[in-house]
Amino acid sequence: MTPMKSQIEEILIKVRERKLTPKAALNELRDYPYQDLGFVKIDHQRELRKGIPEIIYGLGKTDAHIIKIGRELVEKGGNLLITRLDPQVFRRIRKKLPGLSYNAPARMAYLKQREPPPGKGPIAVMTAGTSDIPVAEEAVITCEMLGNDVHRIFDVGVAGLHRLFGEIDKILSARVIIVAAGMEGALPSVVAGLVSVPVVAVPTSIGYGASFNGMAALLAMLNSCPGGVAVVNIDNGFGAGYLASLINHL
Amino acid sequence: MTPMKSQIEEILIKVRERKLTPKAALNELRDYPYQDLGFVKIDHQRELRKGIPEIIYGLGKTDAHIIKIGRELVEKGGNLLITRLDPQVFRRIRKKLPGLSYNAPARMAYLKQREPPPGKGPIAVMTAGTSDIPVAEEAVITCEMLGNDVHRIFDVGVAGLHRLFGEIDKILSARVIIVAAGMEGALPSVVAGLVSVPVVAVPTSIGYGASFNGMAALLAMLNSCPGGVAVVNIDNGFGAGYLASLINHL
Amino acid sequence: MTPMKSQIEEILIKVRERKLTPKAALNELRDYPYQDLGFVKIDHQRELRKGIPEIIYGLGKTDAHIIKIGRELVEKGGNLLITRLDPQVFRRIRKKLPGLSYNAPARMAYLKQREPPPGKGPIAVMTAGTSDIPVAEEAVITCEMLGNDVHRIFDVGVAGLHRLFGEIDKILSARVIIVAAGMEGALPSVVAGLVSVPVVAVPTSIGYGASFNGMAALLAMLNSCPGGVAVVNIDNGFGAGYLASLINHL
Amino acid sequence: MTPMKSQIEEILIKVRERKLTPKAALNELRDYPYQDLGFVKIDHQRELRKGIPEIIYGLGKTDAHIIKIGRELVEKGGNLLITRLDPQVFRRIRKKLPGLSYNAPARMAYLKQREPPPGKGPIAVMTAGTSDIPVAEEAVITCEMLGNDVHRIFDVGVAGLHRLFGEIDKILSARVIIVAAGMEGALPSVVAGLVSVPVVAVPTSIGYGASFNGMAALLAMLNSCPGGVAVVNIDNGFGAGYLASLINHL
Amino acid sequence: MTPMKSQIEEILIKVRERKLTPKAALNELRDYPYQDLGFVKIDHQRELRKGIPEIIYGLGKTDAHIIKIGRELVEKGGNLLITRLDPQVFRRIRKKLPGLSYNAPARMAYLKQREPPPGKGPIAVMTAGTSDIPVAEEAVITCEMLGNDVHRIFDVGVAGLHRLFGEIDKILSARVIIVAAGMEGALPSVVAGLVSVPVVAVPTSIGYGASFNGMAALLAMLNSCPGGVAVVNIDNGFGAGYLASLINHL
Amino acid sequence: MTPMKSQIEEILIKVRERKLTPKAALNELRDYPYQDLGFVKIDHQRELRKGIPEIIYGLGKTDAHIIKIGRELVEKGGNLLITRLDPQVFRRIRKKLPGLSYNAPARMAYLKQREPPPGKGPIAVMTAGTSDIPVAEEAVITCEMLGNDVHRIFDVGVAGLHRLFGEIDKILSARVIIVAAGMEGALPSVVAGLVSVPVVAVPTSIGYGASFNGMAALLAMLNSCPGGVAVVNIDNGFGAGYLASLINHL
Amino acid sequence: MTPMKSQIEEILIKVRERKLTPKAALNELRDYPYQDLGFVKIDHQRELRKGIPEIIYGLGKTDAHIIKIGRELVEKGGNLLITRLDPQVFRRIRKKLPGLSYNAPARMAYLKQREPPPGKGPIAVMTAGTSDIPVAEEAVITCEMLGNDVHRIFDVGVAGLHRLFGEIDKILSARVIIVAAGMEGALPSVVAGLVSVPVVAVPTSIGYGASFNGMAALLAMLNSCPGGVAVVNIDNGFGAGYLASLINHL
Amino acid sequence: MTPMKSQIEEILIKVRERKLTPKAALNELRDYPYQDLGFVKIDHQRELRKGIPEIIYGLGKTDAHIIKIGRELVEKGGNLLITRLDPQVFRRIRKKLPGLSYNAPARMAYLKQREPPPGKGPIAVMTAGTSDIPVAEEAVITCEMLGNDVHRIFDVGVAGLHRLFGEIDKILSARVIIVAAGMEGALPSVVAGLVSVPVVAVPTSIGYGASFNGMAALLAMLNSCPGGVAVVNIDNGFGAGYLASLINHL
Repeated sequence: MTPMKSQIEEILIKVRERKLTPKAALNELRDYPYQDLGFVKIDHQRELRKGIPEIIYGLGKTDAHIIKIGRELVEKGGNLLITRLDPQVFRRIRKKLPGLSYNAPARMAYLKQREPPPGKGPIAVMTAGTSDIPVAEEAVITCEMLGNDVHRIFDVGVAGLHRLFGEIDKILSARVIIVAAGMEGALPSVVAGLVSVPVVAVPTSIGYGASFNGMAALLAMLNSCPGGVAVVNIDNGFGAGYLASLINHL
Repeated sequence: MTPMKSQIEEILIKVRERKLTPKAALNELRDYPYQDLGFVKIDHQRELRKGIPEIIYGLGKTDAHIIKIGRELVEKGGNLLITRLDPQVFRRIRKKLPGLSYNAPARMAYLKQREPPPGKGPIAVMTAGTSDIPVAEEAVITCEMLGNDVHRIFDVGVAGLHRLFGEIDKILSARVIIVAAGMEGALPSVVAGLVSVPVVAVPTSIGYGASFNGMAALLAMLNSCPGGVAVVNIDNGFGAGYLASLINHL
Repeated sequence: MTPMKSQIEEILIKVRERKLTPKAALNELRDYPYQDLGFVKIDHQRELRKGIPEIIYGLGKTDAHIIKIGRELVEKGGNLLITRLDPQVFRRIRKKLPGLSYNAPARMAYLKQREPPPGKGPIAVMTAGTSDIPVAEEAVITCEMLGNDVHRIFDVGVAGLHRLFGEIDKILSARVIIVAAGMEGALPSVVAGLVSVPVVAVPTSIGYGASFNGMAALLAMLNSCPGGVAVVNIDNGFGAGYLASLINHL
Repeated sequence: MTPMKSQIEEILIKVRERKLTPKAALNELRDYPYQDLGFVKIDHQRELRKGIPEIIYGLGKTDAHIIKIGRELVEKGGNLLITRLDPQVFRRIRKKLPGLSYNAPARMAYLKQREPPPGKGPIAVMTAGTSDIPVAEEAVITCEMLGNDVHRIFDVGVAGLHRLFGEIDKILSARVIIVAAGMEGALPSVVAGLVSVPVVAVPTSIGYGASFNGMAALLAMLNSCPGGVAVVNIDNGFGAGYLASLINHL
Repeated sequence: MTPMKSQIEEILIKVRERKLTPKAALNELRDYPYQDLGFVKIDHQRELRKGIPEIIYGLGKTDAHIIKIGRELVEKGGNLLITRLDPQVFRRIRKKLPGLSYNAPARMAYLKQREPPPGKGPIAVMTAGTSDIPVAEEAVITCEMLGNDVHRIFDVGVAGLHRLFGEIDKILSARVIIVAAGMEGALPSVVAGLVSVPVVAVPTSIGYGASFNGMAALLAMLNSCPGGVAVVNIDNGFGAGYLASLINHL
Repeated sequence: MTPMKSQIEEILIKVRERKLTPKAALNELRDYPYQDLGFVKIDHQRELRKGIPEIIYGLGKTDAHIIKIGRELVEKGGNLLITRLDPQVFRRIRKKLPGLSYNAPARMAYLKQREPPPGKGPIAVMTAGTSDIPVAEEAVITCEMLGNDVHRIFDVGVAGLHRLFGEIDKILSARVIIVAAGMEGALPSVVAGLVSVPVVAVPTSIGYGASFNGMAALLAMLNSCPGGVAVVNIDNGFGAGYLASLINHL
Repeated sequence: MTPMKSQIEEILIKVRERKLTPKAALNELRDYPYQDLGFVKIDHQRELRKGIPEIIYGLGKTDAHIIKIGRELVEKGGNLLITRLDPQVFRRIRKKLPGLSYNAPARMAYLKQREPPPGKGPIAVMTAGTSDIPVAEEAVITCEMLGNDVHRIFDVGVAGLHRLFGEIDKILSARVIIVAAGMEGALPSVVAGLVSVPVVAVPTSIGYGASFNGMAALLAMLNSCPGGVAVVNIDNGFGAGYLASLINHL
Repeated sequence: MTPMKSQIEEILIKVRERKLTPKAALNELRDYPYQDLGFVKIDHQRELRKGIPEIIYGLGKTDAHIIKIGRELVEKGGNLLITRLDPQVFRRIRKKLPGLSYNAPARMAYLKQREPPPGKGPIAVMTAGTSDIPVAEEAVITCEMLGNDVHRIFDVGVAGLHRLFGEIDKILSARVIIVAAGMEGALPSVVAGLVSVPVVAVPTSIGYGASFNGMAALLAMLNSCPGGVAVVNIDNGFGAGYLASLINHL
């Protein structure tokens, strides 16, 4: 039984048992599930509903806002994951959020207070080139924060297939595979042709000219011949890790 | 152990045991895995390697080619799935491929000779509107041919959220969810915000003007705020079903 | 008080008064608001919730489906409005839906059983050229079916401003103005510079080459210098009429 | 009677009464309605004609120009609204335009000398995320400067529908609703499905990769399934507020 | 003195002389300059104002409409030019508009009742390939109907520059040059580098793949290195001829 | 007789008269028309061939290169026109090129040593808004350097048509009109509907969001309903002035 | 010594020797190199200049034109190659051009009267899928007509790399490789990573949705990581064959 | 015999001769061909396989990484070529990689330790304008590092064809031609029409407005009428040089 439905039923039962007036029930339904800090609505219920903690999208938030949201989450005992966090912002806020770590290439800050439920198998995170590594690292940190073991397999693009085959063991042992690639974005197609597990394809904005900031790679991945390729947004390492973890926890 | 690796090892072992000359081994590696009909290379090994039968992409193939490939597959005892098959072509070839069924909205022909391995839970296939149903049906047939139970939940787009909530039971009981939507493509985002399982989003080309043949829906899905959304190509019901089944068989 | 909220309250009150078990209440919440015909979910509640009848989008529906939905709506005593209806489809279904009229340029069928609440002032529907008239007629029929008086002002594009000024009386007397224009789409900007009422701008796909099927006009309208321009999708005469009527009934 | 028409008639009447030669009348028609400062033509008549003061688009203007135009408007007793004003420019010019206030997120400066005519009901200004707030604030200030009461409803995007329903009271009590959303831009569609008042949709450039600087959200809004959605340009908070106010003063 | 201004003055003078009431003057200003047939507003004044007859855009007009507009124009003694006229429509309407001729490649019908004022020099109409000829012919007919002598210089694209130089006499003797080119659209740049007269560049939709229906040629022409290139819309042979004639009559 | 043809003939005549060997003639043909400075080939012959001096495109050139090219041109007695010149570069090079003036908004440097042949009538240079003035100034300087009288008519966009009509005298007296407009780019269409002279339309990159850096304005101008509109590249004030001058010198 | 230069010198020498007047020389220079049939200029000199016969682009030409051009070429003893020729047109013209053959998938007609100079090694023509074969066949016929041996290697896309490796002998023995691929267009990248000869990549329009008629494949090929990839237009099998042959004849 | 095939055979032969266990063979196949530095996999085998050294793509790599990879390559005795290297990075790393030279316009560092195999003829590297020179220089350095003689032919764009003809000797003597052009990108078409050798076309991002950062030039080159044009990515001078060298070494 899903939390959302049970929650409605619980409230309805209270009304029936006269523990709640209809008006109060209506208010409860409205006010319960999140905490309103004025500028943001923190979704504490999300950890229950989705099994995954609230993520802070760091870009464009003030220091004060990040600290306030972060503290609310930490005080509730949850884990903390801040994406797209400028290193200078991290340096300023780290004292206010003790225990916060930072992964520079991934531009992510994180703090683990309790162990997340473990994924069911290893997730392989691959890149076509070395320039795709920051996006891949974002996926790696996300996977790890959500309880998954990760195998990094970097710089195995289609320009030198022998490098790919050199890593075939790690590739074939993964339960879910994330592939980050820019430029022509061909690696997810090649990998999906070799394996029988889902491939999460992340186009990166690596390239120039007719790469159009990752659009070439994005289109290539959407048109992948072999089945089993799940595409996410350009440079969305976090989304790839999140999706892979969701699949890996089924 | 993956089939691909073992196969190479087997051949290498035969060489060691002098059952095979190196030259013959090289030839075997080259010639084994597919059957070359001249105009096409049938990948019988695919069923082993990927756990999924060869699919015939029907569009643009001649009757003779479809029949020849279909017969080869049927004779090997496999299941048959032909996508994007014109109804007139189906009418002409059905006699040559006895037992072949046809789903008109999905434009798919199929023939099941043996039971595929079952998926681990139900897959929900949803549409935003009634015009998205053909794409959804393509996903449904694909899922069913690959061994999954399917729940159809059609016409529950965001213009009337109460219709969506009316189906909340079916939605929450699914292990994987496929959502087909055209126009603004908002339904996958809304669904992904409610559930904790992967959502496979299929943009459809339904719409006009600034839908740009499904690009608006595609972009919306790629930019989905809630995590857990796996995007496939516009109108790619088959790909959505294939990916969902892959996840559902993990 | 809005209908949606009162409806929830009503159900909650019934639960409190033991007229409804919580389980039944939950079911009612789920099942009430629409009628499920299998292939479609008719939103009878919409007339209450939005003050506007369910519209049938005719494109791509089978004759049988249109007739079935149409009859359900007619039997409930509502008005009927079918958009993008092929004239040949109309000819086939007209006997099954007695009283249905058809506007050929607008490609709309309609049947009025009761008078809609009247709009508060006239709506002017303008076109830049004669080729934009079909889109404008779609807006006109929509406005009229929703209870508004309409002034048609056609063929007054910016290539001959004196034609526009010749209609200045009608323009200035409107409470809301709809402007359909293709090609460079300049007319809404010019009109919005003259009036102090909202201008609903409908780009049309009229043009060729660099009009890119109405995208040039769409972009022009989105970039309109004078304020007060509300843009809808290319060729969306229905949407323009609907929005204008909504404004005119405030 | 509209001011423009009456003005022409007045001039014609003066000619008839020989108070004006035809040549003088022609000159008067030409010279009357605006004040030419050389680099700009201030439209004092606009306040009469459109009921709304001249707005200064701050971007790209020199300090001297902004001060000169601002003073002209202030001396005439009008209200002042400067959009897209860099905070550093504001700091430099504030002494020259005493009483000028500044809203930092909205990047707007404003000075109210007289009360504008009040709008007929509250305008709700909603955002999908916290990053959309600057655009929303631009709409808020605009609405308030034009005489409207505003309800702010921020961070209620579709990723967590319960946050949206938590604000349902404020939403349903609004006479016009402005919705600012970036990324997949789905919120206006969801809101328009719930209410029976016009929804002014403002796509924001919030997002990355396939958001293409707000184009994904823009396309989503133009393709909105539920009727009643009026789209304005990307990040055009001012335009949204202006349009909403126009509707709210009808 | 331009006709528009004098006309306003004349009316004002009549008012002064009490030959016209202000109200009547206002009406006259509104009603005079065009003839309203209901579905179209014919701009008889245009011939005076612009020195060029009203052109009928044939695409999408009914036979009856074309005939009615055509007769009105012919009865006033003017010349007739119908663009984008389907040959089948021409065959049906030719009896109703005696004397009407048809140019098949250009898809234009025309009828000359009086000699237009002559252009001041020859206009050269060039094409890069043979497939561009229909667009060029549209320009040729337009130029000729507006009183210009035309030199046709076809199939002289940059793939074989010697063909271009073989026509250098005709090219250099022209007062205005029109160049129609599809594919890479390079010819206008080359021609503009050779001559000192204006070059009107017409991109054509000839090509395939990355020509994107003429967009490649359009962009090339807009980016032309040598100065003096005036670009019109894709396939707009009529517009090129009209512009060239305007320049040639200065 | 055009210079190019005569030049070839002259050389051929010299060969006939044995004043030149064929080999020498071939060399002369090759070497004559430009001066090779290594990094650039100065086209002194251009002044003869096109009646217009070589223009230096300033962007991306080193100070040394600009000075060297500039001196070569000045020493030959020609006029100098440098486009897109950074003000800091100008400040550094002005001493090396005595007499050089600079127009800051237009970012152009110029030096007139002899009077160019005069144009045949005034050229009007119009803008829709104040932000379009830099592009317009580039056109103004270009026109003036090429011998034309210019009338500036700024800030007369379609949002307030009365401002446009206030300048109708200047507009109607021009022999060629240049119109610079960003955003919806509607002004050239309106102007071309009023006049009977060529209108050179320059889209500017003024705007944001769906203006796509001037593409909206560009498309609008290419789709202009009234004939007689010659489009040049976005922000290409120089090109507009050059083309207008070419037309004005015919 | 190239033909173009020698030709000019020859003419100049004749002038010197008084065998030609300058005027005649000028005429000869103009008239010599092509044959003007009115609607087309046949470039007989092309065979000398480029080593390759004139190709007839069949699309959009009338039967009469194709026959006339074809006969001119055949009478001169040359070979004939007609691209994009509709099979129905071929059936009508074959009697008028005896000996003409037709390749249906490639839509090409050809007639070989003399042996072209042979290429220096085999050209491999590969496809990713069976649907790419028509484009590949166009390349094959072109290569063969220009004197090259061709190895066909079809249906070896990246979805099943073992099929590619099965053809590794043929691939590695080629002097130039043509690869036709639609959808994600990854095959040229993979092939270019394996070989040390030039790879001519032809994107095909095979695919749907986000393939955007071959644009996805085109972008992928332009962004190819491994060097040595030469891209031609979408579906341009002829161009690929032509380029490969040019390289193969060096 | 290609290295890849022989390598597999060699390993297989060792297995047969019991010098290698199958397991070891498998490992050898996997581990041999590259050197894994953790963050990058250096492809030493590439020099054998492709005849060309590993290239370091400098953009986005840390100083430490470039130095480490560079040293590995230098120590193996190979040549070094670093593309897109910031001049400041070069200044910092030059001491750690003694002998490294830098070409500022091309932004390339290079170190030649042994003579590459010579190309078979000169390669001409042409530009349309002076702004295209940096891209051309990248091609020049690449060609030279790969053993080719290069002829620079700069600033010969189509605006002044006589400059092109002035260099006709150099052009016609080249075995392969590289043409870099921005803006309208017409030069490769013109050159390909004159020569019978392959033309490698490099679109550059030079231009503004509708050049869309080189897309206009890219599309023009892909649509080139004359055959024999090989297109590479925008600003990809390295890729052009690499491809030209590959062709020149055949």
